[in-house]
Amino acid sequence: MILAEGEFGELPSKTAVGVIRYGPHEVVAVLDSTRAGRNVREWLGDAYDIPVLATLTEALDRRPTALLIGIAPPGGQLPPEWRQTVLEAIRAGLDVVSGLHVFLSEDAEFAAAARQRGVTITDRRRPPERNEIAMGREHQPGKKVVLTVGTDCAIGKMSVSLELRNAAVAAGVPAVFAATGQTGVMIEGWGLAADRVISDFLQGAVERLVEQAEGLGDWVFVEGQGSLDHPAYSCVTLGLIHGSRPHAMVLVHEPGRLQHHGWEGRPTWIKPLPTHVAIHEAVAGLVAPSVVAAIALNTVRLAEPEARRAIARVTEETGLPADDPVRFGGDRLLEALRARLG
Amino acid sequence: MILAEGEFGELPSKTAVGVIRYGPHEVVAVLDSTRAGRNVREWLGDAYDIPVLATLTEALDRRPTALLIGIAPPGGQLPPEWRQTVLEAIRAGLDVVSGLHVFLSEDAEFAAAARQRGVTITDRRRPPERNEIAMGREHQPGKKVVLTVGTDCAIGKMSVSLELRNAAVAAGVPAVFAATGQTGVMIEGWGLAADRVISDFLQGAVERLVEQAEGLGDWVFVEGQGSLDHPAYSCVTLGLIHGSRPHAMVLVHEPGRLQHHGWEGRPTWIKPLPTHVAIHEAVAGLVAPSVVAAIALNTVRLAEPEARRAIARVTEETGLPADDPVRFGGDRLLEALRARLG
Repeated sequence: MILAEGEFGELPSKTAVGVIRYGPHEVVAVLDSTRAGRNVREWLGDAYDIPVLATLTEALDRRPTALLIGIAPPGGQLPPEWRQTVLEAIRAGLDVVSGLHVFLSEDAEFAAAARQRGVTITDRRRPPERNEIAMGREHQPGKKVVLTVGTDCAIGKMSVSLELRNAAVAAGVPAVFAATGQTGVMIEGWGLAADRVISDFLQGAVERLVEQAEGLGDWVFVEGQGSLDHPAYSCVTLGLIHGSRPHAMVLVHEPGRLQHHGWEGRPTWIKPLPTHVAIHEAVAGLVAPSVVAAIALNTVRLAEPEARRAIARVTEETGLPADDPVRFGGDRLLEALRARLG
Repeated sequence: MILAEGEFGELPSKTAVGVIRYGPHEVVAVLDSTRAGRNVREWLGDAYDIPVLATLTEALDRRPTALLIGIAPPGGQLPPEWRQTVLEAIRAGLDVVSGLHVFLSEDAEFAAAARQRGVTITDRRRPPERNEIAMGREHQPGKKVVLTVGTDCAIGKMSVSLELRNAAVAAGVPAVFAATGQTGVMIEGWGLAADRVISDFLQGAVERLVEQAEGLGDWVFVEGQGSLDHPAYSCVTLGLIHGSRPHAMVLVHEPGRLQHHGWEGRPTWIKPLPTHVAIHEAVAGLVAPSVVAAIALNTVRLAEPEARRAIARVTEETGLPADDPVRFGGDRLLEALRARLG
């Protein structure tokens, strides 16, 4: 069961949505009293028949084995009003999985309750134990490294990387998803919570993540984070670009998103796509040459004909292949990448 | 006394040199057995009559009150062979000051020895206790924020910021130095060890540093870190650019440095200054408009006539005012900044 109180379907619940869509475990219920009585199907389509419930007691009837904290709020703290639910879940015998910055396993009350009940608390945002700076490692011969970048945070970079990996595997290409965020780590079972790493060691940690991924497949789809023009998160974005030294980048954009999520009403606007393409190539090229090889559009807010028109418009505007791989599958963008990288 | 065993005068000893040149306390000795018998004067000029000694015993004759770890090695670990010297210094009654990533005050053996002897161990690279993301705070009206950036790490950004602040104060301008590295924090007594901050919170921490500095003066000279094209540290650099939202940047370069320090022999070369100027303005402008208003040259390896020629050449190449403020004082660059920012 996934706790997403007050947020399900909104951007802060991207962890919930990501885990439901791509995670390895069955989700039996979403807890959100403000949306109780609804069904995940309404947001994600008929393949996802999961009830949204108001209380832990109702959710327990569906026999969950674990409670997953389904939000990624800016700053990564536990909303104080969620404390009681987490405690009750522990006392009901559920494991707890969290991607918050604050480590629930180190919370004295949670830890004591978990010990008493014999359940585990897993914090998926733990940084690697080794702190090492980047060494400028070259990619192994024959490997292709593709990083998603974006015009904003919370815009779909993880989903695009996953869809590209899935399309590649379906096409018989040995491909790997390299998770760089707590949701990706929950889905894939391994990876790096990049934004939790001490900044001096971020590029080193990303370098080692890619090294590990290259050992697992020929195409490495690295999950991007934030955006290069984000007032709060751009340093994490650049750490991923320079740490992963991608052969190609896929730029993720949502048509109609004019300002950064959470920064609406400020005097700054998301710049045109050609500007984003140029600056990403210039900045990546400061360390290793790279190209933006395709645009991935997040068309979740558009009806299908509008989505297709938006995709065509973006290709016209940028001269690059474009598609919504979450909606229409990753094949077209994968093909564009294979054509570009050989 | 400053411990710089095997390194004094080399780039890793930039902490030692910075503290000797700009720090508030008298330095009575440098410990470096490989350079014993020499004098700091040979490196920094006649104003700095400080003996370089081989052993702690000799140094204790000069009645130091504290031992300062004078290196900033990549990765920030304590060289194992320094352990014994630190322990002996503690046992001799000296306080210890360190800017390493590894916190000496949390080392069980050091902590026990310090407790027993009644001395303190101060780690100057501790991150702030509050972890908060950037809020996009605007500068207070009338404040001018100037950030040093560079074509490499360990190239003189801290010294340039300090010289500019000193020139401003001498000219009667209320100016503040905002330290962003452990050496700057040692010199100034406050500031932020930016590269130690969890990357998600780096821009927030820088934003609050600048807010604090604006409360102390009208001109804020923010110490830069790393470089935007550095394979290991660029994310810290960008965190400073977007977190501080500088009105102007001063680009620090060393003529003749062709590759990044520690990355010699790699296939990457430091790009021409006009390229650096353009990319810094473009990248800064993604969050807030900024200009590179001047070039600061580090001419330490050149004789004076060559240095003056190099400065003239750079002005010709970039069209920007240039000078070596450490060698010739900060007045000319300060004047250029005042002309540009009003």
